[in-house]
Amino acid sequence: MYVVILAGGSGTRFWPLSRTKSPKQLMSVFGGSSMLQRTVERVLPLAPKRIIVVTNIQQQEETARQIAALGDMPVEIIAEPVGRNTAPAIALAAAVIFANDPQGTMLVLPADHYIRNEELFCLTAQAAAEAAAGGALVTLGIEPNRPETGYGYIEAEGAEAGAPMTVKRFVEKPDLARAMEFLTAGNFFWNSGMFIWRVDAIRRELSLQMPELFAAIESIGFGSGWDMRELAPRVERVYPSIRGESIDYGVMERAERVLVIPASFGWSDVGSWSALPEVIEPVSDGNVAISVREIVCLDSRNNLVYGGDKVAALIGVEGLVVVDTDDAVMVCRQDRAQDVKRVVELLQEKGMAEYL
Amino acid sequence: MYVVILAGGSGTRFWPLSRTKSPKQLMSVFGGSSMLQRTVERVLPLAPKRIIVVTNIQQQEETARQIAALGDMPVEIIAEPVGRNTAPAIALAAAVIFANDPQGTMLVLPADHYIRNEELFCLTAQAAAEAAAGGALVTLGIEPNRPETGYGYIEAEGAEAGAPMTVKRFVEKPDLARAMEFLTAGNFFWNSGMFIWRVDAIRRELSLQMPELFAAIESIGFGSGWDMRELAPRVERVYPSIRGESIDYGVMERAERVLVIPASFGWSDVGSWSALPEVIEPVSDGNVAISVREIVCLDSRNNLVYGGDKVAALIGVEGLVVVDTDDAVMVCRQDRAQDVKRVVELLQEKGMAEYL
Repeated sequence: MYVVILAGGSGTRFWPLSRTKSPKQLMSVFGGSSMLQRTVERVLPLAPKRIIVVTNIQQQEETARQIAALGDMPVEIIAEPVGRNTAPAIALAAAVIFANDPQGTMLVLPADHYIRNEELFCLTAQAAAEAAAGGALVTLGIEPNRPETGYGYIEAEGAEAGAPMTVKRFVEKPDLARAMEFLTAGNFFWNSGMFIWRVDAIRRELSLQMPELFAAIESIGFGSGWDMRELAPRVERVYPSIRGESIDYGVMERAERVLVIPASFGWSDVGSWSALPEVIEPVSDGNVAISVREIVCLDSRNNLVYGGDKVAALIGVEGLVVVDTDDAVMVCRQDRAQDVKRVVELLQEKGMAEYL
Repeated sequence: MYVVILAGGSGTRFWPLSRTKSPKQLMSVFGGSSMLQRTVERVLPLAPKRIIVVTNIQQQEETARQIAALGDMPVEIIAEPVGRNTAPAIALAAAVIFANDPQGTMLVLPADHYIRNEELFCLTAQAAAEAAAGGALVTLGIEPNRPETGYGYIEAEGAEAGAPMTVKRFVEKPDLARAMEFLTAGNFFWNSGMFIWRVDAIRRELSLQMPELFAAIESIGFGSGWDMRELAPRVERVYPSIRGESIDYGVMERAERVLVIPASFGWSDVGSWSALPEVIEPVSDGNVAISVREIVCLDSRNNLVYGGDKVAALIGVEGLVVVDTDDAVMVCRQDRAQDVKRVVELLQEKGMAEYL
């Protein structure tokens, strides 16, 4: 098995911790290892032949530094000169794998997701790999435990418990009423953005559904005697003219043999600060503390503090996100965590580039 | 005129900015100069012959550093080996002044008060000095502009507008109903803890009202050939056995000739973080920013941010105190600012001495 980790994101919703040069996947969101490092470590029990991390040139250096910090790993880094969403990144990685191992199977994982039960994750990935052996495109569908309106859904049908199900359709983020229906129905899953397939299978679908992209990637030239060290300049020539597209929209929604493996290992895409209390054990009264030397809470509930390794004190406050970094401090109501990106925009307007 | 600045306080209500070695008066509460430095600078237009800063040995070094940073000033520092409240500090300073100038007049000021109109403050102090020329003990009484329950009051009587009034009695912090009465009555003033008197007058009253204290201070020995450099070891011998007492309770409440000068220069004892919004101009929507590089407020009102020279961002929050220092971050509801000292107690219980 090959693992492809998509690590090129550049979100602003974890400001002030996340910055242009240090987006969510490179951050120590939970304290300790970065999300990328955790993602690499998580797949090691699957004994992958190679792990390919697709990032961009801005983050390449820090990505390489973090991978090196993990010790001797079978990791290769591919840096995109410009971001073009997930389909080109996946097509490029599939071509690289295919050049050396046309029979290979690839597991695609975002670098910035949280997974609670890592053992169950590996078992699920192995089941998905088996399901993909026949040539289907397989996606991991998270069994919903609440009527979440922040995720896309996958409607599935058929099959006995535990077996792969057939994907009927992909559904955009629903409103609350529909999310409740999905939850009750039992055959809807959160679209996790984690996929597994044979490289020949995804390449066949890419050639059918996204022929322009497929041709552009092929033009890079992965013929005999091809060398990984020649990749960067070739990618730089081809990439700018490629059209950005997600693998969901570009391939999955229109492909014929798509299966979903129900997954229940505990998952979050960690879309903003307010997602962290769902996935981190509170210290007391729902107060979650990350990277604090010590936290003192007086009559305070359901707060999230990222403390920059300081002492943190909360007095009489509720439902806040408090983030303290070397050069910025932010206090945000948890239900306003989506507006963090507006702060980044405002700082940009003020020309305060060093804080972006 | 001599100025005596009482700078020995060790409050915890401005944690995490205030620490044992850096209490409120030594802090840059408003950004820039410390409160002590501001107090020294404020009295310079009065052309004092000498300024005596009474501090304690723990804070002596930082006090000296801050005074030196002001340049060439007629300042002397006296360090108490132990804190004994205001009466002993005032008695000691009065003895030091009396030894060289028995006709001197001394103005006593706390080091940690805020005064808005500094010119009016100096005019008021001069008027108070004139009122004290006849031997009365004169206190500055702040004209109340709200039914404040956090201050002690002075009830006064008599006199035409602008003239010194006779103090009828000192009143402890009232409840709201009484504070409203005081406000309406018009002859009640906030007890500011600022005094002016001839040194012989306060010494006479000390000898009558606090004979033990007076004798103890006299035993230090301020005879002919007395030298300021000999003071420290002598004070160290005498001070520990002195009983702590405030000048209000020990002298003022029982003295016979006590006058009050109504003062309207804008004053606050800056008793906690929540006092600062009263005395600092907000940047927007009641948000007060101290020591921030830049502040971004989205739908946020009536907050106070002490930002450690960082960028600060507030999103959807109201009525908070946010304080960020090198080793601590605190978020506190403004109406709970009195509980900051409980955090300090809790950190003490946890043995985290470096944060106290």
